[in-house]
Amino acid sequence: MNYVLLYSGGLDSSVLLYDLKSKGHTLHALSVVYGQRHSRELEAAKAICSRLEVSHQILDVSSLRDVLSGNSQTDLSVEVPEGHYTEESMKLTVVPNRNMIFLSLALAAAISKKFDGVAYAAHGGDHAIYPDCRPEFVEAMQKAAALCDWHHVELHAPYVQMSKAEIVKRGIQLDVPFDLTWSCYKGKGQHCGKCGTCVERREAFALNQIDDPTSYEEKN
Amino acid sequence: MNYVLLYSGGLDSSVLLYDLKSKGHTLHALSVVYGQRHSRELEAAKAICSRLEVSHQILDVSSLRDVLSGNSQTDLSVEVPEGHYTEESMKLTVVPNRNMIFLSLALAAAISKKFDGVAYAAHGGDHAIYPDCRPEFVEAMQKAAALCDWHHVELHAPYVQMSKAEIVKRGIQLDVPFDLTWSCYKGKGQHCGKCGTCVERREAFALNQIDDPTSYEEKN
Repeated sequence: MNYVLLYSGGLDSSVLLYDLKSKGHTLHALSVVYGQRHSRELEAAKAICSRLEVSHQILDVSSLRDVLSGNSQTDLSVEVPEGHYTEESMKLTVVPNRNMIFLSLALAAAISKKFDGVAYAAHGGDHAIYPDCRPEFVEAMQKAAALCDWHHVELHAPYVQMSKAEIVKRGIQLDVPFDLTWSCYKGKGQHCGKCGTCVERREAFALNQIDDPTSYEEKN
Repeated sequence: MNYVLLYSGGLDSSVLLYDLKSKGHTLHALSVVYGQRHSRELEAAKAICSRLEVSHQILDVSSLRDVLSGNSQTDLSVEVPEGHYTEESMKLTVVPNRNMIFLSLALAAAISKKFDGVAYAAHGGDHAIYPDCRPEFVEAMQKAAALCDWHHVELHAPYVQMSKAEIVKRGIQLDVPFDLTWSCYKGKGQHCGKCGTCVERREAFALNQIDDPTSYEEKN
């Protein structure tokens, strides 16, 4: 099959990239610039696609900032919260309707290319904070995807019931270069080690009892 | 209630603008630049919002052109087909997944503003050609909209079962300045009178047996 993969350059979508590639699928990786604070992730996406020789497109819709407000990732007046990723304060990192926007763009790309599917790496660990990573949201979008055009595109979210630790485990089997992936919401030179996504990333490696190759500003 | 209204400056969404306004709702009109050939419609949107004193925002995501191809509205190498809007050739005017993209942006804006709803003017006459104007697509998107965020936004598509002629009828009751609205897909100085949307517009006025105030290049 051929897929448009929503690809941030983060850990989860990098594992999915390797996963689909290992199964022999043709991929077109789509990264979106939406005015995110951590645009550093796009460099990671570029480097990994180049290593895997996967076609990669960066779509710049940073004007989206004009309709998004009140979240720490596109509104630079809001500080990135630190702490465990399940805390209530992490809701500040939710970019309103980000996944629907990204999926709609990826579906448009897939329809234009007459591809079979769109893949994205929503995963289980996100549910507590991110409403648009829940299985019921994915199901609703699958129905909408099946109706939005005469050309049928399947929406594939194979990690929606998996935890981040399970994704890391899968990534180890696939030999994913974790050191090249980018998670940190602060998007500085190094992973901060303290924001929600850094905490989640660390925890996922610890649960697998393997070394985390990420270089963190804040050591354990 | 307060709504973000997807507002193109065309006939249908202009009637919906007047309709919601007449019911006392607070409106924020959102127009999208997506690289459309007929960006002339945005001037119409601006003029009508200014007349009605409705807050109006133009979001420029014209880079979308980079993921859309093969349609006459964003791919300038494809000519706008002429003829009746129900003809097979009109499929060339379908911008892949446009409505899902627009709805996802409007929902993001509504969530950011903590508004109650998003409104759009998908209508019955579009179904033959436009898959993303069908009631079943609207229903799927309503479910996705209800799940995409913790803040609930209702997706309102009151014209989904109405024909264009019925929308014109409603517009007459509401005293909509039809002469200010813009439909033509060619987007030149005047309505061409021959493209699918001009043909549909003419037909809708004829069915109501009233004068069409539009100035067409091709006279009847």
